[in-house]
Amino acid sequence: MNKIIKGTGFSSINLQEIEILEDYLFCINDDGFIAKRLSPNDQDYNMVLKQARSEETLMELTEGQYLLPGFIDLHIHAPQWAQTGTALDLPLYEWLNTYTFPLEAKFSDITFAEETYNHLVDTLLGNGTTTALYFATIHEEASFLLAKICAEKGQRGLVGKVVMDDPAENPDFYRDASLEEALTGTERFIQRVKELNKTTKQGVYPVVTPRFVPSCTSEALEGLGKIAAKHDVHITSHCSESDWAHNHVKERFGKNDAQVLNDFGLLTEKAIMAHANFLSDDDAKTYIEQGTAIAHCPISNAYFANSVIPIKHFADMGVEIGLGTDLSAGYDPGIYSAIRQAVISSRMLEDGVDPSKNAASRGRAHSRITANEAFYFATAGGGESISLPVGRLAENYAFDAQIIDTKIKDSSMPIFEGMNSLQDIFQKLVYMTQRRNIISVFVQGERVK
Amino acid sequence: MNKIIKGTGFSSINLQEIEILEDYLFCINDDGFIAKRLSPNDQDYNMVLKQARSEETLMELTEGQYLLPGFIDLHIHAPQWAQTGTALDLPLYEWLNTYTFPLEAKFSDITFAEETYNHLVDTLLGNGTTTALYFATIHEEASFLLAKICAEKGQRGLVGKVVMDDPAENPDFYRDASLEEALTGTERFIQRVKELNKTTKQGVYPVVTPRFVPSCTSEALEGLGKIAAKHDVHITSHCSESDWAHNHVKERFGKNDAQVLNDFGLLTEKAIMAHANFLSDDDAKTYIEQGTAIAHCPISNAYFANSVIPIKHFADMGVEIGLGTDLSAGYDPGIYSAIRQAVISSRMLEDGVDPSKNAASRGRAHSRITANEAFYFATAGGGESISLPVGRLAENYAFDAQIIDTKIKDSSMPIFEGMNSLQDIFQKLVYMTQRRNIISVFVQGERVK
Ligand SMILES: [Zn+2]
Ligand SMILES: [Zn+2]
Repeated sequence: MNKIIKGTGFSSINLQEIEILEDYLFCINDDGFIAKRLSPNDQDYNMVLKQARSEETLMELTEGQYLLPGFIDLHIHAPQWAQTGTALDLPLYEWLNTYTFPLEAKFSDITFAEETYNHLVDTLLGNGTTTALYFATIHEEASFLLAKICAEKGQRGLVGKVVMDDPAENPDFYRDASLEEALTGTERFIQRVKELNKTTKQGVYPVVTPRFVPSCTSEALEGLGKIAAKHDVHITSHCSESDWAHNHVKERFGKNDAQVLNDFGLLTEKAIMAHANFLSDDDAKTYIEQGTAIAHCPISNAYFANSVIPIKHFADMGVEIGLGTDLSAGYDPGIYSAIRQAVISSRMLEDGVDPSKNAASRGRAHSRITANEAFYFATAGGGESISLPVGRLAENYAFDAQIIDTKIKDSSMPIFEGMNSLQDIFQKLVYMTQRRNIISVFVQGERVK
Repeated sequence: MNKIIKGTGFSSINLQEIEILEDYLFCINDDGFIAKRLSPNDQDYNMVLKQARSEETLMELTEGQYLLPGFIDLHIHAPQWAQTGTALDLPLYEWLNTYTFPLEAKFSDITFAEETYNHLVDTLLGNGTTTALYFATIHEEASFLLAKICAEKGQRGLVGKVVMDDPAENPDFYRDASLEEALTGTERFIQRVKELNKTTKQGVYPVVTPRFVPSCTSEALEGLGKIAAKHDVHITSHCSESDWAHNHVKERFGKNDAQVLNDFGLLTEKAIMAHANFLSDDDAKTYIEQGTAIAHCPISNAYFANSVIPIKHFADMGVEIGLGTDLSAGYDPGIYSAIRQAVISSRMLEDGVDPSKNAASRGRAHSRITANEAFYFATAGGGESISLPVGRLAENYAFDAQIIDTKIKDSSMPIFEGMNSLQDIFQKLVYMTQRRNIISVFVQGERVK
C-alpha cells in the first residue's frame, strides 16, 4: 500500500444514512484508490496497522480530527472569481452585461487568466473541493490554462470552454467569432485536454459547454451534441434556471428547455445541468432516462432563479443530484455553504415564506431535505452526477478526502468532553466547519493541501 | 487621546447608504469613545497624525486591512452552545424537550456553565460580535456568571435570567420553582449585574427575560413588566415566532402576542423581541410607538418560524431592527452568516419559492433587502435597538470595531490589484469574511482579540 490512514470518517450510504467509520484504516494504493477499508473488528486490522507502522506508511488522525470525502462542486464560473461577493443587488440583465460579460471578455489575456485561475483553484482546494466542474470562457488558451492549473495543483478539474455564438443574443465584445470557430475550437480543446489528462494522476476532463440555450444558435447546439457523442465527453449547461430563461426557450422552440437539450443530444449520462428549477416531471423523467444530473446551486438561486427547486421531489423520483457554488452568482467558494443553504431553502419551500398566507396554503409539503441528504448531494451524489468513482470513503473509490480538525485554535466549534456523540459531531462538521478547520486535503491519494 | 487608529473603514449612514472612510484617523478617548474622526482633507489631519506618531498612540492598518463596526447579536441562547449545529432536523417540540430543556437544566451546575460560557464568549468575540444580548437560563448563579465572563473578557453583554414559571407549560425538571422565586430572583439578578456593571468599562446589563408568553403565567408577565419599569432595564422575549406560538397566544388572550406583551408593560424603548415573523401592521405600529425593536434571526427562522419575516416592510414602516444568531436554533455563532441569510431570505420572500406557481402569485413584491440594509441591521440598527451608542464608526459612538485582513494567508478573498473599488471591497467583506480574516476586535476602545 502507498499509505494507510487511520481515523474516524463519515461517508454517505444512501440519501438518508451516514456511515460512521470509527477508527478505521483506509488503505490507499499507488493509483490513489481506497483498496481496502478495515474496521477495528476486522481480523486483519492489527496486522495491517503494525505493518504500516513498520513501513512508515501510516498517517494517524489525532483526537478531534475527522475524515470526510472531498466535496464536488458541479457548477462554478471560474472567470467570475474576481467579482465574487459583489454586485448581487443588481438585476440579472445588468449583472451580466455591466459586470460579468466584460470580466469574462478579459480572459483573452492569458496573464490575467493565470492570476485568477491559480488563486481560485488554490481557494477551492483549501475549502475541501477536490473535484470541480468549471465553466471557463470562450477563449481556448485561457480555458486550457485552467485545465493545466488543475492538473498541476492536483485537483480533479472538469473544464468547459464556453460556447455562446448567437450574434443576436450576445454582446459584440464577448461571443464566439463564428459557429465554425465555436465548434472547431471545442474539438481542439477536447483533444488538448485529453492529452493533458494522460499526464495526471487524478484526471482532468474536457466538457462540452453551451452557455445556455438562449445564447446559442440551433446549429451550435446540434454541433455540440454531435461533438460530445463523438468524443464521449462530459456536457454541461444551464437549464430552466429562471422564469425568463424557461419561458424564453419555450417561446423559441415550443417545448421545455430540457427537451430542447435532449433533442440536440445534450442530455446524456455524462451531462450535468445547472439549476433546473423549473423542470416539469416529464423533464425530470427525461433526465432519469438519460442519466443526466442536476447541479443544484442554492445560494445563487436566491439571487437569480426566482424560486427554490423542489430538490427532495426530484431526488425521490431518482434524478442524480449534486451541488454547485455557482460563483459568482453565488458568493461563497466553499461547498459547506451550499449544503447549509440547500437545507434552509428546502425548508422554506416546505413551509412557504409569506406569513400573511395561512399555513396550509403557504408552502409545498414534503419538500425539506435533511443535513444528511444535502451532504449526500455534496459528495456521493456529485460523484454519480459526473459518473466518476468519487464522493465516498469506500473501497474502489478514489481517495479524495478532507481532514477536519475540530480542536484547532479559534475554531468556533463547540465540542465538549463527553457531550457529543459521533452522530452529533458529524452534524457539527456539516454545519460549522470553516476553511480554518480543513487542515489537509487529498485528491486521488495525494495531499494537495 | 488614548489611541489613534489610521485606516479605511466602512459604516452605515442610513439603511441604504454606507460611508467609505478612506484613510481616516479615528481618535479614541480614555473612555473608549470615538472623540473625533478625521478625513485626510481635514485641516488637523497631519498635525494629529504627527502627534500620534510621536506619542506612540498610533495604530496603522496595513494594506488590505479594513475597519468595520463590531457586530451586535440581539438574540442568542448562551446555554445552547454545546448543542449548536445538531438536531436541526427535528420538529420544534422534540428539539425543545429532548435536547434543549435537558441541556439548559444542566446550568444548575456552575462548573458546567463556566466551560460553556467561557468558550462561547471567546467565540463570539473572535467572530466580531462586540455586543450580545443573551438568554441565559433560569439559574441565577449561572446567569450571573455569564455576565461576569462578559465583564472580564471585555464584551458588552446584556444578560437575561430566563423566567418560565407556568407548571402546565414547562417540564418538571426545568422551570422556575414558583412565581415568587421567578420574580425575586429576577430582581436580585438585576441588582447584582448593576453592581457588576460599575466595575466594567464597556458595560454589562441585566435583562428582564420572560422566555415567551406561552411559558409564563400572567402573574409572572405582569410582575416582570413592573420590575422592568422599576429598575429601567432592558427586556427581551420571543414574539409571534411561528404559527403555533402566534396562535397559542391569540387563543389564550384573544389578542396578538405583541399586544399581550405591551399590556404587561413588556414593550418599551429598551425592549427587543426575537423573530416577530407574524406581526400585524398594528403590532408593528405598537413597536414603533414604544420604541421596541425586532431581533431578526434569519437562519433559525428557516428551521422554526414557518415563514420569512417581511423585514423590508417593517423597516420602511420605521421599526427598529437588528440581527440575531439565535443559537442553537441557528447554527452559526457569527453575524456574517445572519447578514447573508437575511438578504437571501428576503429575496425568497420577494420572488416566492414554489416554481409550480406562476411568477405573479409566487412571492410578495418589494420584500428584498440589499447587503447594505442587512449590514445596517447588524451594526447601527442593533445599536438603536438596545438604545446604546454602538454600531457606527462615528463620533460619540463607542469604539467597537473589527479589523478585517483581506490579504491574510488562505483567506478565500478574491481581491486583485486594481480590479476592485472600495465599494466592491465592502461587499466582499460582507459576503466573504470568515473568522480567519478578523484579526483584531475592539470593544469600548479596548482590544479584546
Ligand atoms: Zn451558472
Ligand atoms: Zn430564541
